[in-house]
Amino acid sequence: MNTLAPATSPSAARTLTDPDTPFAVVDIHKTRRNIERLAAKADRLAVALRPHVKTAKSLDAAALLHDGSPCPITVSTLAEAEAFADGGYTDITYAVGIDPHKLPRVLALLRRGVTLRILLDSTAQAESVAEASRQAGLPVPTQIEIDCDGHRGGLRPDAPAIVKIGRILHDAGCLDGVLTHAGESYFACTAEEQRLAAKNERDTAVTAAERLRAAGLPVATVSVGSTPTAHAADDLTGVTELRAGNYVFFDLVMAGLGVCRIADLALSVVVTVIGHRPEYGWIVTDGGWMAMSRDRGTAVQAQDQGYGLVLRLDGTLVPSLVMTAASQEHGTLTARDGAPLPDLPVGTRLRILPNHACATAAQHQGYHVIDSTRTTNTAPEILGFWKRVTGW
Amino acid sequence: MNTLAPATSPSAARTLTDPDTPFAVVDIHKTRRNIERLAAKADRLAVALRPHVKTAKSLDAAALLHDGSPCPITVSTLAEAEAFADGGYTDITYAVGIDPHKLPRVLALLRRGVTLRILLDSTAQAESVAEASRQAGLPVPTQIEIDCDGHRGGLRPDAPAIVKIGRILHDAGCLDGVLTHAGESYFACTAEEQRLAAKNERDTAVTAAERLRAAGLPVATVSVGSTPTAHAADDLTGVTELRAGNYVFFDLVMAGLGVCRIADLALSVVVTVIGHRPEYGWIVTDGGWMAMSRDRGTAVQAQDQGYGLVLRLDGTLVPSLVMTAASQEHGTLTARDGAPLPDLPVGTRLRILPNHACATAAQHQGYHVIDSTRTTNTAPEILGFWKRVTGW
Repeated sequence: MNTLAPATSPSAARTLTDPDTPFAVVDIHKTRRNIERLAAKADRLAVALRPHVKTAKSLDAAALLHDGSPCPITVSTLAEAEAFADGGYTDITYAVGIDPHKLPRVLALLRRGVTLRILLDSTAQAESVAEASRQAGLPVPTQIEIDCDGHRGGLRPDAPAIVKIGRILHDAGCLDGVLTHAGESYFACTAEEQRLAAKNERDTAVTAAERLRAAGLPVATVSVGSTPTAHAADDLTGVTELRAGNYVFFDLVMAGLGVCRIADLALSVVVTVIGHRPEYGWIVTDGGWMAMSRDRGTAVQAQDQGYGLVLRLDGTLVPSLVMTAASQEHGTLTARDGAPLPDLPVGTRLRILPNHACATAAQHQGYHVIDSTRTTNTAPEILGFWKRVTGW
Repeated sequence: MNTLAPATSPSAARTLTDPDTPFAVVDIHKTRRNIERLAAKADRLAVALRPHVKTAKSLDAAALLHDGSPCPITVSTLAEAEAFADGGYTDITYAVGIDPHKLPRVLALLRRGVTLRILLDSTAQAESVAEASRQAGLPVPTQIEIDCDGHRGGLRPDAPAIVKIGRILHDAGCLDGVLTHAGESYFACTAEEQRLAAKNERDTAVTAAERLRAAGLPVATVSVGSTPTAHAADDLTGVTELRAGNYVFFDLVMAGLGVCRIADLALSVVVTVIGHRPEYGWIVTDGGWMAMSRDRGTAVQAQDQGYGLVLRLDGTLVPSLVMTAASQEHGTLTARDGAPLPDLPVGTRLRILPNHACATAAQHQGYHVIDSTRTTNTAPEILGFWKRVTGW
């Protein structure tokens, strides 16, 4: 897999001064370092890692996860599953509760030899999956979604339906295991709260698995994970695999939680200064919500980072400057705490660090790639362009 | 121009029950009605209309704006300008302050015979444009951005720089006129406030134009507009053109301002129920922020509509149901004011009306098209697929 596709698309750009703004940029050095950090953690915990590719949605970025031989992955859409299957990935979990209407595409992937696992939390879904599997003569490997923290879907580990669903799936040859996601860990503000969220996530998944096993139902997979809990977990006994996605790029929300440092953020958006409103204390750029997304995840954190923090093109932070407002193609930068506005003339390029990498990345067709360790001047060289998978 | 491209992409879908969810759908009947409403208003005001295509970003949708012969348009990116130029549009205003780095693409469009007008609000930009025009031997028609309400860019109408910029542009053969946008009208909560915002927008633009004229500088274009002010204006004397974009689809923010009715909303997102959490009062769908965007524009209005209101597939409102939470590929629906949750089994398809049509549309590659006046059953027929322009 080519992790450094030539910089021929969408333009033959040579440095970050060349493509018209706004555009997304990924620092391959930080991405690699973030990937290595969680891989080492999973090794220490003696658990398999199944990265979620929903953040970067890029075969080129995913290639950094492994040494040439595609690894197990998690996806958030069947479009991702199909694109990664085309790229040689054969072990994929689609971690959104299944809509029975989508089963033909699931079966098509299974027939191609892809082990595509799906997720559900109701007898209605289980019966649809069992029936579709019988009709196709091809059991769909299926996990039961367990709710560990009231975040969104899943069954509580003591729900009677778990065993009933397990039996429907098992009878059709479909039961693979259980999966939980500690979505509320995104609001766990201290290392100790994150450690407890990780313990609770693990305990909940293992409890549900034990209930199925006690009913005579085999459980192969016990899957847990979120970026905060994956980094906080200290014991995953009984868990077979760990999922996380955001950690590849990280973002200001994760930095606000203390899961990473701001220096670890691998994704940013390059924008250009197009105006000044000194009477309001504003610098206006050509990067609005179309480039950044409307995500304001840090608004609920101790330090609200607006729409993002501001870097010079070379990656150094512009002190006190924050992107505080966005319209479709305009961003407004203001200085914090009465600090003076830096002198940034029209035409100056800056990089904005996003609140939420998944949402900001989704606003772009792909990423220009730089390596912050290779840069020797103020305009990092563009090493390649990584395309994103889009749609559903 | 084909306004009803065959429904062959991204799937050969026949009704709204066919494509896998989530997907965006546009009601061509409501779109036409919204377009006719503002066209009639512009006629009454005796002002030319220059619709902003940044909302739909679709040549097929834009074809409804005129009868075969492309009309003057406004764009928010050069990618839009280039795509619409390819589609035969020759009179285009790029209404974001110019980054001088983008002037080569501007000049390339001018050389193709497209009258592409650009926007700026500083002497630095004006000097760049004048210099580029002289070097190219091709004057770039340029408007001076005027700030009427402190929303983002532009110069106040009494700013000394206006005349200075006007002279730089005029000397290079580039001065076309002035442009203002009453962005703060999105927060004008009553019809009277919107009328006053429209009056202020008009007065500000005309004042700036008169200042230039008083200095001996010819002003051809006096351009104003936003969806709220375009619908509220009662006198546009001295204005040569009116811009608006959102009105083609409208959305819950516009309905909250009283600019339209909820029945006028032409864009929605089809989602599927994938689970239930009766203990929390939640219905879970496969439409999260990736399908809706993170835009929560109604959060600052009298009636917060969450991430959106909920329709049955046939377009009837599901009373009291609101999309109140979103993760990447999950939406949560809850009932308002203690109303009972409707019985919506797994697999049920619903349509979500968005807060902000521009932001929700941007999450999709295009729109399946229905006509609510032609539908005779509960699953509207899909008449075509309209592709969107993406990127910058």
